[in-house]
Amino acid sequence: MKQKLTNISIELFEKKGFSETSIQDIVDELKVTKGTFYYYFPSKEKLLMDIHLDYITHLLDRQKLIMNDKTKSYTDKLEAMIKMLILDITDKGASGRVFFREIRHLMNVNINIIKEKRALFRLNIEQIIKQGVEAGEFRPDLQVSMVTFAILGLTNYSYEWYRPDGDIQPAELISIYQEMVLNGISNANRS
Amino acid sequence: MKQKLTNISIELFEKKGFSETSIQDIVDELKVTKGTFYYYFPSKEKLLMDIHLDYITHLLDRQKLIMNDKTKSYTDKLEAMIKMLILDITDKGASGRVFFREIRHLMNVNINIIKEKRALFRLNIEQIIKQGVEAGEFRPDLQVSMVTFAILGLTNYSYEWYRPDGDIQPAELISIYQEMVLNGISNANRS
Repeated sequence: MKQKLTNISIELFEKKGFSETSIQDIVDELKVTKGTFYYYFPSKEKLLMDIHLDYITHLLDRQKLIMNDKTKSYTDKLEAMIKMLILDITDKGASGRVFFREIRHLMNVNINIIKEKRALFRLNIEQIIKQGVEAGEFRPDLQVSMVTFAILGLTNYSYEWYRPDGDIQPAELISIYQEMVLNGISNANRS
Repeated sequence: MKQKLTNISIELFEKKGFSETSIQDIVDELKVTKGTFYYYFPSKEKLLMDIHLDYITHLLDRQKLIMNDKTKSYTDKLEAMIKMLILDITDKGASGRVFFREIRHLMNVNINIIKEKRALFRLNIEQIIKQGVEAGEFRPDLQVSMVTFAILGLTNYSYEWYRPDGDIQPAELISIYQEMVLNGISNANRS
């Protein structure tokens, strides 16, 4: 039931927005009572926090696996992260959109927790790029933080416009984004 | 007064969100009455629509000037648009963030009007890239719509993270984004 409440809430928050979705709207969808909701969540805000935490924790866990994979070059690692973020749109697109749009509605203490985790995800990408520069894979003159924001811009914005069941296959989008980023930063392609 | 009401509303909508900002909050900031607000705007939604319309109309007008500039190559035109979008963060950053975040709160008929204008802005970028391909400036194998979304991803996301009064100068950000995009699509740099 907890998972069902979470899933339907993600759907409603995405469609109507967090502020416009009442606990009544959520329980109506599942034909349960408000008591059921409060059995699992002390508040709508706590549910939103759980959605945020699940989302970023799952990303950080998989990012760590990629970072620790000793068989991969830094180029491979960066490509694997772009792939992960785009493939997630299929399974976790709605969660992602709620994550990007609704953070403002968390309590300040929770906003700070999520922002810290988001920053860690970003700094991990920076670290890979820095290490790739040191290893000679990427150009030495890169502004690492800006390149990182550029990668996050490409991938995060995809959650808004890209629909995996449309004309463009996920594999196609992944390969184009990988190529754009790598063309921009690879040491082999300097203009 | 109309402009003052609009400016303070942009500030409040950005900080607190559209739903969480009441007309009372807006008029309190200016020490005027609700009557003053209603003299200029029939509703908070109409004010939000005006903010959206001003924002996208101003962008489309300047985009048109760039497109019609016969002295510019397609590469120049694309670079000029990236520059315009990043420079706007200084003057129009708050309007941009309200524009990106709050469209959901418009009435459906207004959402459609704004979406149509946003689509026109995007399709104009596509057109420049297509013409650049035909002119031999850009690679012939480009997925034009995806490259366009990539450019919009880079620039739109900057409204969320980039602060022009921080360490990174606007000119620096502009030149890196121009280089990333052009490296990715230029016919001269094929990998």
